[in-house]
Amino acid sequence: MPSEFRTTRRIEFEDTDAAGIAHFSRFYVFMEQAEHAFLRSLGLSVHMQLEGRRLGWPRLSASCEFLEPVRFEEEVEIHLTVKRKGEKSMTYAVEFSRGGRPVARGEIASVCCLCGEDGSFKAVPIPKAFASRIREHGHS
Amino acid sequence: MPSEFRTTRRIEFEDTDAAGIAHFSRFYVFMEQAEHAFLRSLGLSVHMQLEGRRLGWPRLSASCEFLEPVRFEEEVEIHLTVKRKGEKSMTYAVEFSRGGRPVARGEIASVCCLCGEDGSFKAVPIPKAFASRIREHGHS
Amino acid sequence: MPSEFRTTRRIEFEDTDAAGIAHFSRFYVFMEQAEHAFLRSLGLSVHMQLEGRRLGWPRLSASCEFLEPVRFEEEVEIHLTVKRKGEKSMTYAVEFSRGGRPVARGEIASVCCLCGEDGSFKAVPIPKAFASRIREHGHS
Amino acid sequence: MPSEFRTTRRIEFEDTDAAGIAHFSRFYVFMEQAEHAFLRSLGLSVHMQLEGRRLGWPRLSASCEFLEPVRFEEEVEIHLTVKRKGEKSMTYAVEFSRGGRPVARGEIASVCCLCGEDGSFKAVPIPKAFASRIREHGHS
Repeated sequence: MPSEFRTTRRIEFEDTDAAGIAHFSRFYVFMEQAEHAFLRSLGLSVHMQLEGRRLGWPRLSASCEFLEPVRFEEEVEIHLTVKRKGEKSMTYAVEFSRGGRPVARGEIASVCCLCGEDGSFKAVPIPKAFASRIREHGHS
Repeated sequence: MPSEFRTTRRIEFEDTDAAGIAHFSRFYVFMEQAEHAFLRSLGLSVHMQLEGRRLGWPRLSASCEFLEPVRFEEEVEIHLTVKRKGEKSMTYAVEFSRGGRPVARGEIASVCCLCGEDGSFKAVPIPKAFASRIREHGHS
Repeated sequence: MPSEFRTTRRIEFEDTDAAGIAHFSRFYVFMEQAEHAFLRSLGLSVHMQLEGRRLGWPRLSASCEFLEPVRFEEEVEIHLTVKRKGEKSMTYAVEFSRGGRPVARGEIASVCCLCGEDGSFKAVPIPKAFASRIREHGHS
Repeated sequence: MPSEFRTTRRIEFEDTDAAGIAHFSRFYVFMEQAEHAFLRSLGLSVHMQLEGRRLGWPRLSASCEFLEPVRFEEEVEIHLTVKRKGEKSMTYAVEFSRGGRPVARGEIASVCCLCGEDGSFKAVPIPKAFASRIREHGHS
């Protein structure tokens, strides 16, 4: 039962800005892509059905510190860790590095919700089929 | 000498995702657009020359809490406040609301840098022409 | 009954890339934003209900020619024209200029669809309430 | 000397919109990413130096037809072909498919330029080191 995941991401031209570096807003997208790849690796998805109703995972918060700029065509290593598995929410810590040296460090949190047909979201406990496949980092 | 700025932003179709709401990563872009509009309103820009060299403002950090989802074509009010004016860095707090009700709350920080022709960044004190036009919120 | 619409768009930092200019993919977003602003100006939206079912407008095609680069904080004038109002589809021509001089020229086409609850799209005739408010350019 | 390239791209959550499908503007980014991956596979890049000056490849035009919607987490196959190798410009045709069935079909063209320090672009013949590694499709 894993509590972490590693992937890589090449900086694409669309990620860059006129300062010649990856735009800071892209790191939030990279964190999400790592989260989704982690879930896929477990046979899970943020788009799931539960007893005929659609589940979603709206964000509660996200933060990132930027240590070094990264540039077009550089490859960034991404290390995602399950920081907290709550009753209704998940928090991931994400470390970005290049050639083993840290370049950014962030965190994303989401809450598990039932999606109404009217577009509403209602927080619900994380389904067992989901929660039972993920372990909080540092817990056995 | 202002310490705050107000603007609005309509949620565009490209801001939305398959959950039917504005994607969380877009709020970081909205915060930056409010910051740049604030600077423009003072005759300033993040792209400036200082004694023949180019200044830039790479991000140090950015965070956001998401209170309510926002949807296509809704108009969001944005209230930016100068939280901290440091010697070399600026920190802004940003409140998002819809119809007067808060929907998100974030913070962005940048460091003033000289941009080398080789693409390097070197932190420098904020030029007086810049710093003298902005006041830290709550300071007279 | 209008057949054209004018708006402006400032180039934001997130629109730029490491070549120092607005990334070409952003012009497709700008064309869509002009189309949606045009529809809003007529009390219409691409997100409408028809007899209790949801309508959508998936793209059929989009093209753009790029004549001059545009840069951060420049303001671009956008002129949208209804090129063709078909039975089920709409085609818009879009001219971008800066200070009156053309910088790009594009076209977008969409088909009116009923959206099934299973996510399917079925092309349908454009509702009269929609079609009756828009005139094909050059037609009286 | 290759004249074509194949890659894949998973549809990420940020690619989707409130209609539940990949936003049309993302296909232009996917075409560019395939072009850059093709060039990288040949040891080339759109960011190159020529005799101490920087080369760039601003877009001349891009177009795409959309045949079928694609959705979150689907994997799209991308087939890029060198449609035309001009003296100063390159044109690529791009086919997108899913499970072997076409979903979109596009074209992108760029012009080889010297980038001035003032941000200007001047069209120049494609350097031999670049042109000699790429073959026009259908030519021997």
